[in-house]
Amino acid sequence: MGEAERKKIIIDTDPGIDDAMAIFIALRSPDLEVIGLTTTHGNVYTTLATRNALHLLEIAGRSDIPVAEGSHATIKKVTKLRIASFVHGSDGLGNQNFPPPQGKAIDQSAAEFLVEKANQFPGKVTVVALGTLTNIAMAIELDPGYPQKVGQIVILGGAFSVNGNVNPAAEANIFGDPDAADIVFTSGADILTVGINITHQVILTDADRGKLERSEGKFAQYICKILEFYFSYHRDAYGIKGVYLHDPTTVIAAAYPSLLTYTEGVVRVQTCGITRGLTLFDNTKKRYAEITEWSDKPKVKVAVTVDAPAVVEIVMDRLMNS
Amino acid sequence: MGEAERKKIIIDTDPGIDDAMAIFIALRSPDLEVIGLTTTHGNVYTTLATRNALHLLEIAGRSDIPVAEGSHATIKKVTKLRIASFVHGSDGLGNQNFPPPQGKAIDQSAAEFLVEKANQFPGKVTVVALGTLTNIAMAIELDPGYPQKVGQIVILGGAFSVNGNVNPAAEANIFGDPDAADIVFTSGADILTVGINITHQVILTDADRGKLERSEGKFAQYICKILEFYFSYHRDAYGIKGVYLHDPTTVIAAAYPSLLTYTEGVVRVQTCGITRGLTLFDNTKKRYAEITEWSDKPKVKVAVTVDAPAVVEIVMDRLMNS
Repeated sequence: MGEAERKKIIIDTDPGIDDAMAIFIALRSPDLEVIGLTTTHGNVYTTLATRNALHLLEIAGRSDIPVAEGSHATIKKVTKLRIASFVHGSDGLGNQNFPPPQGKAIDQSAAEFLVEKANQFPGKVTVVALGTLTNIAMAIELDPGYPQKVGQIVILGGAFSVNGNVNPAAEANIFGDPDAADIVFTSGADILTVGINITHQVILTDADRGKLERSEGKFAQYICKILEFYFSYHRDAYGIKGVYLHDPTTVIAAAYPSLLTYTEGVVRVQTCGITRGLTLFDNTKKRYAEITEWSDKPKVKVAVTVDAPAVVEIVMDRLMNS
Repeated sequence: MGEAERKKIIIDTDPGIDDAMAIFIALRSPDLEVIGLTTTHGNVYTTLATRNALHLLEIAGRSDIPVAEGSHATIKKVTKLRIASFVHGSDGLGNQNFPPPQGKAIDQSAAEFLVEKANQFPGKVTVVALGTLTNIAMAIELDPGYPQKVGQIVILGGAFSVNGNVNPAAEANIFGDPDAADIVFTSGADILTVGINITHQVILTDADRGKLERSEGKFAQYICKILEFYFSYHRDAYGIKGVYLHDPTTVIAAAYPSLLTYTEGVVRVQTCGITRGLTLFDNTKKRYAEITEWSDKPKVKVAVTVDAPAVVEIVMDRLMNS
């Protein structure tokens, strides 16, 4: 596939151990052209997300890719954020104390960068959203025409017909900014969302980690350094000897959509109460007597199955052959 | 089974076409002793529920069974209720204009009656809740020891991992009084809930209706008079030629629990926002990092499978042999 045909992607990210994997996989995927990273809060605070994004690009020798820093608060300006340092370490990268990056973020905000690129390449930019959806919602507020100008938004977010991972109701990326998520899901953009009902099927096992350790791949070597914290969290929280490949699966869904199947319908996000952050999908099988909060809203694609072995194979290949 | 061994049940009901079926089935079930009906709002307003409950007992020749009228408002005293007259007709019984009943309700309120019977037969009374859960919550408020004194509460309520029937989030009985439902689900009583994920599998078909019409059964004949409205609603709302047996399935679950399988966990009800009335079950598979709204709450049983043909067979038998 020629350069001109590669899918342009911007990764909106909060690195994050599995974000690091996803970024490396995107950089090594011949079908993708990473035209920028934007940073958000979630696994870490936004400031640290920016630092880690710059660091990871330097590790990859790709400091040419711009990093635009995103919002430090939710769309409603809430600054008391939920940060998953117990999943990724207090530095977001398995507490490895990497040196600070040389480079810095560009002057544009994440939202400004997202809008600019959508205007520059209308219909051609895929945004892969791996953290809270604050920046995407801000891009929509900045330019109401953004949903029609962006190509596709592929989201790691939601828990469809399964329990959440923050609490029984909510998945972390949606929980981190439910108001932003509801804006994005109902924006009319071409959206594919990959929930934890999908990503909990895609597991990097201890045996896979062994293969990464024995490989000479630069990315494999780096990832192995940061993986132990993530493995430890999964042992404690889920009782499994492996880790869920949330972010890598989402990048791969953007690159190779045929590895997943989808259903279409309206997704709304609950923004208050005990199920705050819940994603609720209307399968549109019933004709309700009353107008509902789902009526007349744009549909999105929700992933329902995934070819998990194929996804893991791509993850292993991209990390080992690097 | 001797008289002494029959399971004592109180049906809390808002008749309702499928409530009528459920009441008749209970009256014809050799394993059940109906010791009272209590009335609530849902399919109809409470006043009409009381009228219909008395009427149905008179049709069955069982005016000896007491009817206790329940609350006319939700547990939080909201009087603007959601009444499903478009499902059951404005009279609740398929717009058949039956004459008013001869009898009247007893002087006790539904909550008082529920508490009295639990005290009279501690651990021996099964309450089958076919409408909003207002009365049960009021019984718990009236007597905080009620959850330990009642035998089991078998609820028709909730939509577990499926869309609701009021809107994509909520099932009607829970939506009608979410605050009451959350009180009941977290009360510590022995609770089995049968959601529409179960009852949508139990369908009385057009062919079944034909059999009822050709039978000589008194109940079958009566039910056929009121069924057309319910069939018509299902054609419009779901595009099916049949009706869901919500209430009959729930009575049969109380009588023959082995026809269903169950899982156990905490159920909470969302009481505000766009998913108001949503029932959210925690499968307790994950150890959450934070205390959640589900932590340390009592578990309930949630039905996960049903032997639908067996349930339909019992429904047909009870209505035709009457």
